[in-house]
Amino acid sequence: MKRIAVDMDGVLADVYSQFFNLHEQQTGYRKAPEEVVGKLEFEAFELGPQHVLSDGFFLNAPVMQDSQAILQKLNTLYEVYIVSAATEFPKSLAEKQAWLNQHFPFISWKQMVFCGSKNIIHADIMIDDHFKNLDHFTGKTTLLFSQPHNALQESGRHIRVDTWKDIAVQLL
Amino acid sequence: MKRIAVDMDGVLADVYSQFFNLHEQQTGYRKAPEEVVGKLEFEAFELGPQHVLSDGFFLNAPVMQDSQAILQKLNTLYEVYIVSAATEFPKSLAEKQAWLNQHFPFISWKQMVFCGSKNIIHADIMIDDHFKNLDHFTGKTTLLFSQPHNALQESGRHIRVDTWKDIAVQLL
Repeated sequence: MKRIAVDMDGVLADVYSQFFNLHEQQTGYRKAPEEVVGKLEFEAFELGPQHVLSDGFFLNAPVMQDSQAILQKLNTLYEVYIVSAATEFPKSLAEKQAWLNQHFPFISWKQMVFCGSKNIIHADIMIDDHFKNLDHFTGKTTLLFSQPHNALQESGRHIRVDTWKDIAVQLL
Repeated sequence: MKRIAVDMDGVLADVYSQFFNLHEQQTGYRKAPEEVVGKLEFEAFELGPQHVLSDGFFLNAPVMQDSQAILQKLNTLYEVYIVSAATEFPKSLAEKQAWLNQHFPFISWKQMVFCGSKNIIHADIMIDDHFKNLDHFTGKTTLLFSQPHNALQESGRHIRVDTWKDIAVQLL
């Protein structure tokens, strides 16, 4: 059974919605999508470093469309691990685990990994929205999940997927 | 640079001290060391499942003798990751990270991994007190750290180390 490492932020959890909404709540100004394209999250949202530290940022993130049903199917066909860079923001650890338990109850605690660097992860397939994770991955198949920060870059050796339905096409 | 995956509980953190002390605090009876030899933690300490869920269990665990100085040296010669099975007890995540920050400040958040199963970990060397982790490890070198639960078993293909000074002999 092949092993998949699935990222959380920007793949399962729609953190951009959180950034857009919290920025608007605090400043009264809603950024336009084109303002954030091609910039890393904290370049696009100058208040982002403060927002990710606030209570509920990760706990209240919306679930990415179709991710629940498709991940549940993947979970029967692959050895699925949810691998999230979380230790940079220690408060996020408990929120991220609670969020997974709430929205993906079929994922057990044994399948969760909260780390800093993902270089130590050993799997066959990685789904992630950041090149820094995919580029160092030692497995065979890398899916780049489209997010505004990576939208202007060529996917290179990675397979670009825009939606969870695209992931289903690749892996189901 | 070779990569080492270092376990926390029973390797860096002296959780047995916690089990002995909390059992005594709650029951008035201090178990003798020979009562717990050869039994897994929760077989040896019937109140253990309740104690690991209590506030401070992981935060207040004593540091294993010599581990700070020797891990600091290893950290200059190897790519060190602290890999701890933590997601079974969600409250432990924050305590474990705070404990590492307090006692091992030279370990950055990038070097921390809190997971369930360690099967997904990719490294050259693993230091752990549990066969279930060492037996599935895909790297070359496995050090079995002596703890009461593994004291009666042959180490097999793993190298048994009784102390951090023994680790230093093997790896420095």
